[in-house]
Amino acid sequence: MTEMIGTVATRTALKEQLQRRIDQRAKPLGSLGRLEELALQLGLIAGSLTPDLGAARILVFAADHGITAEGVTAFPSAVTRDVAKLVLAGTAGINVCARATGADVVLIDAGLLEPLPPHAHLLDRRIRAGTRNARHEPAMTQVECDQALAAGAAIVKNLRSDGVGIIGFGEIGIGNTSASSLIAHAITGIGLAGLIGPGAGAPAAGLEHKRAVLQAAAQRISLGDLKLPDRSREALRQFGGFEIAMMAGAMHAAAEEGQVVIVDGFISTTAALVAVAMQASVRDALVFAHCSAEPGHLMLLDHLDAKPVLELNLRLGEGTGAALAIPLVRAAEYMLRDMADLPSPPLA
Amino acid sequence: MTEMIGTVATRTALKEQLQRRIDQRAKPLGSLGRLEELALQLGLIAGSLTPDLGAARILVFAADHGITAEGVTAFPSAVTRDVAKLVLAGTAGINVCARATGADVVLIDAGLLEPLPPHAHLLDRRIRAGTRNARHEPAMTQVECDQALAAGAAIVKNLRSDGVGIIGFGEIGIGNTSASSLIAHAITGIGLAGLIGPGAGAPAAGLEHKRAVLQAAAQRISLGDLKLPDRSREALRQFGGFEIAMMAGAMHAAAEEGQVVIVDGFISTTAALVAVAMQASVRDALVFAHCSAEPGHLMLLDHLDAKPVLELNLRLGEGTGAALAIPLVRAAEYMLRDMADLPSPPLA
Repeated sequence: MTEMIGTVATRTALKEQLQRRIDQRAKPLGSLGRLEELALQLGLIAGSLTPDLGAARILVFAADHGITAEGVTAFPSAVTRDVAKLVLAGTAGINVCARATGADVVLIDAGLLEPLPPHAHLLDRRIRAGTRNARHEPAMTQVECDQALAAGAAIVKNLRSDGVGIIGFGEIGIGNTSASSLIAHAITGIGLAGLIGPGAGAPAAGLEHKRAVLQAAAQRISLGDLKLPDRSREALRQFGGFEIAMMAGAMHAAAEEGQVVIVDGFISTTAALVAVAMQASVRDALVFAHCSAEPGHLMLLDHLDAKPVLELNLRLGEGTGAALAIPLVRAAEYMLRDMADLPSPPLA
Repeated sequence: MTEMIGTVATRTALKEQLQRRIDQRAKPLGSLGRLEELALQLGLIAGSLTPDLGAARILVFAADHGITAEGVTAFPSAVTRDVAKLVLAGTAGINVCARATGADVVLIDAGLLEPLPPHAHLLDRRIRAGTRNARHEPAMTQVECDQALAAGAAIVKNLRSDGVGIIGFGEIGIGNTSASSLIAHAITGIGLAGLIGPGAGAPAAGLEHKRAVLQAAAQRISLGDLKLPDRSREALRQFGGFEIAMMAGAMHAAAEEGQVVIVDGFISTTAALVAVAMQASVRDALVFAHCSAEPGHLMLLDHLDAKPVLELNLRLGEGTGAALAIPLVRAAEYMLRDMADLPSPPLA
């Protein structure tokens, strides 16, 4: 069905053609609201007036975080693997959301403390058994950080052959709101305190303890002298985690491949922030699924000038919000591709 | 899969059991946000801790309105049938939205000016070739109004045998925002002017002209002396249309059948308002899909204490918003039925 627009000289020309096509669909002008904005974006991503995006897949990146040793989480690191096992069993939150929206789910071990047994829906891309404790030392070496970014990119390069063109990004990682807050602070300059929330649950010692630990981690090094994109890459290395780095690498590759990237919550958005800091054009490929209940998320969305399509007060992670946004992406795709045109004279 | 709870004495007990089940799913407490509220509602509708709702279907009710003779619409009545034909051809807005969300679509001719040729997805339930002009006379006779309500109920009674348990309600009817504004004003007492918007497009003579015509129609009769539910039924008869009456009858029957009713935009919500006014318990079966761009819709949602699940700035009608909400209903169903429980000790 795809009518490639190789003859269209510029993105601007394609944008105008897409907008005209959207306006000519059989409906009052603008009456499909946000779906019309999505359709325009999808057409630009696919480089086509009649995009055929293909299958949707949720990639769930799982890894552990050394900073959990500081008591910044409600749950121990072992819970990362427990939840990952539920994903493979098909009974986690992401599985029910993906099943409701026609997506399949693949789990990536990016660096769990303990590996999982082989499974048809598991990719073993372990960089290390968890990051180092970012309170006291860099979470990763430079080599590990580069490996994680490259592994993410490689996963995406293989998706086209499976017919996948819509990728939802989710994660599991006890401690990864801590890593995200630190990375987001380093990249955006937004005050660290405002970027810190309870994540999956406030630690036993309270949110103030989490704030104190993260302030100390942030003060361990000075990134202020580095310019972007170097600062984003160094923040990623300093604070982790392997799942965030792998997501950033995968998002970057997906944008290059002309695939639709659906960004989930606070951690997934932090990965998007890193990817955009490394290459600004990645932003064009990103569909922001929802605004989560984690307080820092809204700030990052604002920073990225992102208007999510859903508002469901989710804070589970795993890619649940990304999955729920897939039918909206799909409806926008079909609207652009398969809906009738207006009769003549047009509906005003 | 359905584990019927016939032994549960009261709705309150079921509600407590459902809430406990939702809280025990493998996720931080409350972390699926609005999906958890939906799951509670679905469990109560189905009367089950493990609801198996069955297939989803969009019913699109189409009819014409005599009040279009007053120049209150941007488009002539003939457009109702044009759009209905696109629905049957599978290329209208509702078709792409339904296809994106796993629902099928059935069109009901509730009273088009001119009938459509037979079609596998068309139900001929024509009451009359359009309503009378409500500016000057009652839109329907009492018999016609009763026929439309009964026809809607009968359509729903046949859905169980098709395995349908989720019903999205959409409509097509040039002039039906006028009918809806008048009915909504009569039932709720909200000022008529605030309930009037452009619908599919402001009329050539302007929105002020539409307001003047509807004010005159409202003043033609006095409904203030009638109490609910008689007032709602008389408002329906006075202002039409056949599609709104048929939707109200269908929603009432669906609530009795324990089916999930997904309410779309302003007109669909007006039908819900009528159905709830006729029997308050109908409210429990209603899932409100979205808040449309039509200004009166938000007021009706507030009146019904309804918090829609989507906010996409839609104003197309046809059931498009209802279709897009189906995956959220489905995810809530699967969460309740198929998600794992917490390990012990639980995630806080």
